[in-house]
Amino acid sequence: MNLTVTDVRLTPILVADPPLLNTQGVHQPYTPRLIVEVVTADGVTGVGETYGDTKYLELARPFAQRLPGRQVNDLNGLFTVADAVLVDSAQVSDQVDVGGLRGVQTADKLRLSVVSGFEVACLDAWGKAAGLPVHALLGGKVRDRVDYSAYLFYRWADHPAGVAAERDDWGAALDPAGVVEQARKFKERYGFTSFKLKGGVFPPDEEVAAVRALAEAFPGHPLRLDPNGAWSVPTSLRVAEELGDVLEYLEDPALGTPAMAEVAAGLRGAARGASGKGGGGRRAGVPLATNMCVTTFAEIKEAFTRDAVQVVLSDHHYWGGLRNTQQLAAICRAFGVGVSMHSNTHLGISLAAMTHVAATVPGLHHACDSHYPWQSEDVLTRRLTFQDGGVTVSDAPGLGVELDREELRRLHRRWLDDDGSLRDRDDAAAMRAARPGWVVPTVPRW
Amino acid sequence: MNLTVTDVRLTPILVADPPLLNTQGVHQPYTPRLIVEVVTADGVTGVGETYGDTKYLELARPFAQRLPGRQVNDLNGLFTVADAVLVDSAQVSDQVDVGGLRGVQTADKLRLSVVSGFEVACLDAWGKAAGLPVHALLGGKVRDRVDYSAYLFYRWADHPAGVAAERDDWGAALDPAGVVEQARKFKERYGFTSFKLKGGVFPPDEEVAAVRALAEAFPGHPLRLDPNGAWSVPTSLRVAEELGDVLEYLEDPALGTPAMAEVAAGLRGAARGASGKGGGGRRAGVPLATNMCVTTFAEIKEAFTRDAVQVVLSDHHYWGGLRNTQQLAAICRAFGVGVSMHSNTHLGISLAAMTHVAATVPGLHHACDSHYPWQSEDVLTRRLTFQDGGVTVSDAPGLGVELDREELRRLHRRWLDDDGSLRDRDDAAAMRAARPGWVVPTVPRW
Repeated sequence: MNLTVTDVRLTPILVADPPLLNTQGVHQPYTPRLIVEVVTADGVTGVGETYGDTKYLELARPFAQRLPGRQVNDLNGLFTVADAVLVDSAQVSDQVDVGGLRGVQTADKLRLSVVSGFEVACLDAWGKAAGLPVHALLGGKVRDRVDYSAYLFYRWADHPAGVAAERDDWGAALDPAGVVEQARKFKERYGFTSFKLKGGVFPPDEEVAAVRALAEAFPGHPLRLDPNGAWSVPTSLRVAEELGDVLEYLEDPALGTPAMAEVAAGLRGAARGASGKGGGGRRAGVPLATNMCVTTFAEIKEAFTRDAVQVVLSDHHYWGGLRNTQQLAAICRAFGVGVSMHSNTHLGISLAAMTHVAATVPGLHHACDSHYPWQSEDVLTRRLTFQDGGVTVSDAPGLGVELDREELRRLHRRWLDDDGSLRDRDDAAAMRAARPGWVVPTVPRW
Repeated sequence: MNLTVTDVRLTPILVADPPLLNTQGVHQPYTPRLIVEVVTADGVTGVGETYGDTKYLELARPFAQRLPGRQVNDLNGLFTVADAVLVDSAQVSDQVDVGGLRGVQTADKLRLSVVSGFEVACLDAWGKAAGLPVHALLGGKVRDRVDYSAYLFYRWADHPAGVAAERDDWGAALDPAGVVEQARKFKERYGFTSFKLKGGVFPPDEEVAAVRALAEAFPGHPLRLDPNGAWSVPTSLRVAEELGDVLEYLEDPALGTPAMAEVAAGLRGAARGASGKGGGGRRAGVPLATNMCVTTFAEIKEAFTRDAVQVVLSDHHYWGGLRNTQQLAAICRAFGVGVSMHSNTHLGISLAAMTHVAATVPGLHHACDSHYPWQSEDVLTRRLTFQDGGVTVSDAPGLGVELDREELRRLHRRWLDDDGSLRDRDDAAAMRAARPGWVVPTVPRW
């Protein structure tokens, strides 16, 4: 078994994305992703997937050049390679990153997002070569299926008129009735039993009404609301109080650890007050989840020391891969913080990767997020499927997925043909196609 | 490649141990260890090593019975097995565990110490089957050699008269000159360049004098002192102040997180005071290390939140194996806490295991502890060797060690022949052979 890397292929693609709304605008009709292939001396090919924007591509290319001659199972070495790849500081922003609203961008985060695509490809290649599923290379699965949550979005039926786009049959969702209808479809089609609503789009009271409508339509189903940090601390506290009886958790109501810590302290205080007034049996305030204030290992200490968050939503893309995700989960476990998974627009390779690592994490008490149902296109010969809201953990060698080269070529051709306007995801620009002059609102917006 | 476990062998042994002194007494002339062998369907045998006292054996036996039919690479599953094995509560003590002075004993810690022996054996078997070194199964080495520290002990030349024991040529070390002489031998024989003195044996001023003598004899060499929690907070602060200019770290001066947090806070305060008086370039107090107040994942939160320790000394035996050690290291890294390795009396299998995992841990800035030079006996066909104080990381399949079955039989025979008096390590009982009526001093002793 020769695990030496002999070739690496990088294929940027553009994949169809529906007009999903968030605080930063609306998803573009096509979003960039990067497909990574790592080939070993034995001719085994492993696949990975990560962000495909220019700044990631510009890092991925020199990274890929350093891989031939290395071993696919030298996973720790990928971080050494990453350290050696220079990040163009012009690519780094102190703004919240639009591609998934995943906190402030840093050079390290860019590097780790690139590492993750290669790490998954290396694990896939190693697993195929060894005849072992990826979860077995990560210490072994502790569950046979991974539960996912329906990821509800406010959305338009179609992208703006005049914009080239694929269409879908989901229809618009712009009010409580539309959100409930979308949730119903999710449940029918995929069996999801928990629902997350991407908020921060409409004034808080409208989003509270949507969550209330979900609670009435689906009694007993775990619900989550995620306004991506669009609210002030007082607004966050008010919504948490209003929805405390139905929310599994409230995700990033306010932006950054100091604000989240303030919200968390406020909720603890309110819970103590209520309990002092004879409400002893009451829950201790709605838990706060995040994928914005804890997005790197360096951000953990402050957030955990201040008890700012109760659930961290990992994303193997920007945490630096599946093994880093396991480490994050171990840190959360040691601090009594829950863990689950964040999702940005992604294809089946990443869903498979998420499922493998989630299968190995003990104490995964919350269903993971996934955009996958929104993606009508994929680069696999067989799409992954949700049954009763979950994905069965594959025991086939590697990730258990197979690349559809024809589809990969087609989506790469779309990327080649693009004039550059879609190669860097920009939700605000996409919004301006419908509302000229629109700018990203300053936070807190409400 | 069939990785199914078909057989498990447990061999308790007694190995020679010199009369090394500590706060709890003196090492017995022979100490119990357990050698674990896991055999796969393909006939590959993996070896592991852990504590061999009765309470561990009584857990290891039912544990071993549950392994056949499982996969050697199902490492996460070992914890599920451990959860299913009942701990006799009579074996659990709320006292500090004498076997290595490794903090308070709990049922979980007993279980994890047993898991570690099996985890290492499984990794060895998997590595041998796959043709990969254990470090490659842990993500790959980031260094080619692991540095160890000379582990200096106050000791007698021989075990008490009338006690059956092996002899060695180290001689006594009961004062500063004896300690320096011992350090010189360590340096000559193994090339160690950093020194740790096991303290808590003599009044603090005598131990301070010994460290001072070491500093004079070996200028610029990192030094450590470890009284195993024998001191009060004021004594700890005084010693830290007196030795602040020569100590790499001070290990467990006081017992438990609250006391350690008080010492750490005092040191920070003193450093601030000194800096306020124009000592701006001064170091911020001597770092505190521990293998007593942070010995389980559950103990991390309080210690790290209170900044009670600056270095955690992991021990893969009681943390639950090599992968848990990696997780601990990841937690330390996220919190800016240093990491290195603790050692109790152990043989070459465990030294190999420590070396493999240490090779994969980034940011290992302190040489690891090891008792190995004190062990004249081993169960390997070839002892591991120290060169310039380090062990070269093996790239052979598995751990890279081979069991000497004849020697294993001989040491097992010693265990079988024992009347039970040595099967449970008891440093206080061993001390009473020299000083009848001796009891473990209450802490803080000084």
